[in-house]
Amino acid sequence: MEQSFVAWAKMRARRLPQEKVSIGDDAAVLAATDSDLVVTTDSQCDGVHFRLGETDPRAIGRKLVNVNLSDLAAMAADPRCVFLSMCLPNQVQTNPAMATDALASEIYEGVCEALAKFDVGLAGGDTNCWDGPLSLTLTAIGQTVDNVTWLRNNAQPDDAIVVTGPLGGSILGKHLDFTPRIDLARAIRSSIPVNAAMDISDGLSVDLLRLTDASHCGAILELDKVPISDAAVQASESSNKQPIEHALGDGEDFELLLTVPPDSVQQLQQLVGEDSAIVVGSITSRTGLWAREGGKIRQLTSSGYIHGR
Amino acid sequence: MEQSFVAWAKMRARRLPQEKVSIGDDAAVLAATDSDLVVTTDSQCDGVHFRLGETDPRAIGRKLVNVNLSDLAAMAADPRCVFLSMCLPNQVQTNPAMATDALASEIYEGVCEALAKFDVGLAGGDTNCWDGPLSLTLTAIGQTVDNVTWLRNNAQPDDAIVVTGPLGGSILGKHLDFTPRIDLARAIRSSIPVNAAMDISDGLSVDLLRLTDASHCGAILELDKVPISDAAVQASESSNKQPIEHALGDGEDFELLLTVPPDSVQQLQQLVGEDSAIVVGSITSRTGLWAREGGKIRQLTSSGYIHGR
Repeated sequence: MEQSFVAWAKMRARRLPQEKVSIGDDAAVLAATDSDLVVTTDSQCDGVHFRLGETDPRAIGRKLVNVNLSDLAAMAADPRCVFLSMCLPNQVQTNPAMATDALASEIYEGVCEALAKFDVGLAGGDTNCWDGPLSLTLTAIGQTVDNVTWLRNNAQPDDAIVVTGPLGGSILGKHLDFTPRIDLARAIRSSIPVNAAMDISDGLSVDLLRLTDASHCGAILELDKVPISDAAVQASESSNKQPIEHALGDGEDFELLLTVPPDSVQQLQQLVGEDSAIVVGSITSRTGLWAREGGKIRQLTSSGYIHGR
Repeated sequence: MEQSFVAWAKMRARRLPQEKVSIGDDAAVLAATDSDLVVTTDSQCDGVHFRLGETDPRAIGRKLVNVNLSDLAAMAADPRCVFLSMCLPNQVQTNPAMATDALASEIYEGVCEALAKFDVGLAGGDTNCWDGPLSLTLTAIGQTVDNVTWLRNNAQPDDAIVVTGPLGGSILGKHLDFTPRIDLARAIRSSIPVNAAMDISDGLSVDLLRLTDASHCGAILELDKVPISDAAVQASESSNKQPIEHALGDGEDFELLLTVPPDSVQQLQQLVGEDSAIVVGSITSRTGLWAREGGKIRQLTSSGYIHGR
């Protein structure tokens, strides 16, 4: 299969921006630039990140691109090109009517669709068939703009903690159909002095704890300010959990988590709108993760559980 | 598993060259250089490229690195850093005594060993556990030196076709234990005008046909000059095939296939030695793949079968 697929894939990818040498040689050649490169890689596996029998293969391809672009956005980088590796099942167990090459083409179309939205090229990859389930790996290459890179390890005491949208319940649909915050990162990086950033992939609580650990500081969340998505409310109806617990603990929100000096908040909100820059708490010099609710401060676990609530 | 593994992996990788930001943030940051980047990606899957129950996991890790470095060598690029993605089986079926984290560590050690040989860094990756078999993907980033890049599509009529070592029978051992031709590429690129190059991963016949197709030309092989490995002879004892057929048709030799102007051959052989620059034929303006043996010219199939022999 590989040769004919590579020929088709090369033709299909021609509608995307091209590198000096792309699909078809031993490696791709990317022209030098005078900015730093930002590189991330992320895999999506059947049974872990999606269920092949229940999910449109194009949506799988789009998600694969978008989770990687979300990582680049979290570093304030502009995406440039990606490399796609597919391990395709010889037999599509959940849908025997779908041939392996049809599955490959659908995933590939989803990948190309998601790339086209941000003008990103597909510069190479590897395709294999095997007796295992579907496994996809994408490596995304971006570059810094104006020498700005957002890292996790520079949050400062008193920084405002900002998220870019409502949280929780992503599993009900958003996890397959979200927009990586590339455009927000572009708007913010040139005018706001962001001290630390990451994307929320495993849930606000656990990701904020990672950010504060890396920065050797702590955080206090104002629970009544955490934006709760409609999906979090919907999820709570059958989960025995409160909507706020979904907002704190669910994963795959793919919003940005930023810390900015308090005197930059107003400018940030004027720039991107209050709905895209929601202050949910502040960084503390005392380590640990804390939650304020109704005047009381309690410790918060990384899973979003609030002690003694 | 992932957090503790990432912490250990980060520490282990510290003995390798570091990028500006490596393992631990959303993405890695690579300082800009004024040379072009060369990027390749290659997957290795249980049951396709190795059998987990029969193969030392460290050797699997080394091979994963070396197949990618071989692609960079084939472009004349210097390797710089890699990104490792592992999909690890929740249960190691073929060896239930080996825990998933022990498997991960062994593969990782093999990866680091192979990288250390060429002073290459491990700058990031992704680790997942799933119910599928072991699947590994590596993306390798290199850079050009002195603006030299070897491509497949520039072979010229009358070029000498050169291979860098004996061919065939790799499956008997070499495929797991080979040296990517980084050092040879370094020696050759600055002094010899190589017109086209690739590495021999699927067998001399099929890879030479790819090179000539890309260059819109043909090739004639001198069968008595094709270097036959001891393993090819050994394989022929039980295969019903001649050693030359193994040399032409077996895959995973990971030698370089170069085309150079005929008047550069002597200089090339003086530079790297005759055993590392073996002339096996010449490029023709007539398309197709041909074999000369005992004064007769016959057509050669891409699988290494010689018509009418």
